[in-house]
Amino acid sequence: MKCTAKLALWLTTLLFSLTGWAQQQPMLVEKQRFTLDEYVTHGGETIQELQVGWEAYGQLNENKDNVILITHFFSGNSHAAGKYSSDDEQAGYWDAIIGPGKAIDTDKYYVVSVDSLVNAYPHLPSVITTGPASINPATGKPYGLDFPVVTIRDFVNVQKAVLESLGIKKLHAVIGASMGSLQAIEWAASYPDWVERMVSVIGTASMDAWTIAGLEAWSQAIKLDPNWNGGDYYDAEAPLDGVTMAQALITHGAMHPTIFNQLAPAQETLPEQGLDTVDNQLPAAQWLYESSRQRAPLADANHILYLVRANQLFVAGHQKTLQQGLQNISAKTLFLPASNDLLLMPYMAEAAAEQLQSLNKDVTIEHINGPWGHLDGIYSIQQKANTLKTFLE
Amino acid sequence: MKCTAKLALWLTTLLFSLTGWAQQQPMLVEKQRFTLDEYVTHGGETIQELQVGWEAYGQLNENKDNVILITHFFSGNSHAAGKYSSDDEQAGYWDAIIGPGKAIDTDKYYVVSVDSLVNAYPHLPSVITTGPASINPATGKPYGLDFPVVTIRDFVNVQKAVLESLGIKKLHAVIGASMGSLQAIEWAASYPDWVERMVSVIGTASMDAWTIAGLEAWSQAIKLDPNWNGGDYYDAEAPLDGVTMAQALITHGAMHPTIFNQLAPAQETLPEQGLDTVDNQLPAAQWLYESSRQRAPLADANHILYLVRANQLFVAGHQKTLQQGLQNISAKTLFLPASNDLLLMPYMAEAAAEQLQSLNKDVTIEHINGPWGHLDGIYSIQQKANTLKTFLE
Repeated sequence: MKCTAKLALWLTTLLFSLTGWAQQQPMLVEKQRFTLDEYVTHGGETIQELQVGWEAYGQLNENKDNVILITHFFSGNSHAAGKYSSDDEQAGYWDAIIGPGKAIDTDKYYVVSVDSLVNAYPHLPSVITTGPASINPATGKPYGLDFPVVTIRDFVNVQKAVLESLGIKKLHAVIGASMGSLQAIEWAASYPDWVERMVSVIGTASMDAWTIAGLEAWSQAIKLDPNWNGGDYYDAEAPLDGVTMAQALITHGAMHPTIFNQLAPAQETLPEQGLDTVDNQLPAAQWLYESSRQRAPLADANHILYLVRANQLFVAGHQKTLQQGLQNISAKTLFLPASNDLLLMPYMAEAAAEQLQSLNKDVTIEHINGPWGHLDGIYSIQQKANTLKTFLE
Repeated sequence: MKCTAKLALWLTTLLFSLTGWAQQQPMLVEKQRFTLDEYVTHGGETIQELQVGWEAYGQLNENKDNVILITHFFSGNSHAAGKYSSDDEQAGYWDAIIGPGKAIDTDKYYVVSVDSLVNAYPHLPSVITTGPASINPATGKPYGLDFPVVTIRDFVNVQKAVLESLGIKKLHAVIGASMGSLQAIEWAASYPDWVERMVSVIGTASMDAWTIAGLEAWSQAIKLDPNWNGGDYYDAEAPLDGVTMAQALITHGAMHPTIFNQLAPAQETLPEQGLDTVDNQLPAAQWLYESSRQRAPLADANHILYLVRANQLFVAGHQKTLQQGLQNISAKTLFLPASNDLLLMPYMAEAAAEQLQSLNKDVTIEHINGPWGHLDGIYSIQQKANTLKTFLE
């Protein structure tokens, strides 16, 4: 397999699913559609005909108290485990820990996962979401930047509506990685009566200036592309160059040099094309950008901008201070930062855990070790299977 | 002082100079001009009427064997120490360690520094450089992308021509930070008879795939700006949006969260403008991008592309393998990585030191500790004053 194809496959893995290649009888799952006639955002704006996709693994018990909610990362969707068809090459991204007899045991728990609002990949066939690329019922045209700015609290509120439609009023646990960790702690801070256990994987309790400024580059890449056109491109060519760069920044930031240098083409001699012109790319850059280009048509540029903003605005509980938000948490909490994470560095989860400890909350923190960096929260999660199993008991 | 103004000042510091605010009698220095009628690049292309600026501190002795060459970083220039006028607000960037009685003692050594080819800031009045923005004598117009791709070896070769014009044939030491460290080790690997001592600060012996792909973003930001126009913008508006983003990426990458979060506006509450639209920036991002915007007109977009390429192509000695290049080194070497460096992480200097050790070369490595990250190589260099002093004796 060519290197670029390999990276493309790894990254597709993050979109579609993960691991479980050798699983003999895959857990078969089905994407379902949830609709709200009207939804009022945390910022007070109304969205008509909101739709999101969701899926579930395991059985809801009679008391409806065996529910675990899985909240997904920036580039992900609700396909956390299982396969849509036994022919699928890959299973959901956390299939290593979700399934019958696994750490998140679907023989015991009813595991629910919901596609986020303004999902980054609305053009993936398996994703159902509402965002700037959706048709505004009031105009019959895509919203573009008329779509209201949404926050992590809105993601949580939509998930709550999905759960309530199933008669659920309590979560045995909420568990999420990266942007999913923001949703998990937001759940615990905003709806403490619902949440008994909270697991933050490669996460943070709030955004600091360094991370806000780093995320800004993902947006700037898109805004620099002339095809972005102030967000109005649905009748024209999409800003795929900008999206390609945004995705390349995300992938690069989510990987530690250890794994990147193992996977990308190495360079010891002067590459031929290097001296011809500066208007080309060296192999290592090509490797990253070409695989990103392949995925770009599945994304929506405006959706990425909205996701970036939701992340940038994050402070657990969305109160005046982080302290106020954390004070509300009654859940038992577990933080699993990745030691080599360069995107949401371990100091963030450590700070959250310390602050909760100082508020006399129930906190455990353990580090995931691995070569992937941020992506160890996905690819090395199996390392914490026992910790998770015990925490959930 | 407003926060943005503060950051702008800090960053201007990196362009113009550093420290020595309280110095009573500044060392006065003068930028000089060096011209070569014809220069043949490492890639075999000819540049006519090449010019670079240079400056020197201290006195050249009779034997011309007391010379220390200082090679500068990506966003820097030859102003390493002293002031051009006693009115200057700031002194050269390493004024803390270069001067009479300092670690690099100008009472003993003749310290020379040269503006790089394709310097990032050709529009800074104090910079003299040749690059894509220079007039091509053959056409009477700026080169644009017709300027030949240059390498770190070319920077070294031009410095060598400057030194030879002064009758110098030997370097007591060559010392550089970041991109300057590439030049320092390139000197030691390419001209071992010249170099007695080599100091690599926040450096590496070669570029790995992760760093090549990371640097690519600095170029992509510029190429996405429609004003870049394939490098042909000298009769039109310059691609300042692209340059602004490139510089923001550089600054962000060169700073560790520890210092960034101390300097940038913190965010605990939902900022007012956050929910209005995604077509604006939150305070922390604004702080970074506005100061970058202020400096953008001093830079040239194509020059940044050429600098990125020179860095991406780097392997010490420019031989077939890094091993071959390092094998040639006879200098005593000192590596000073910064523990919190996120741009050229300490593993790079550590790997270089290990490889030299395994080749039985004379190697010392010490880490700089500080909150700045990569920029500790500039702002915290005083920490290693004694190490440097001893190393130079």
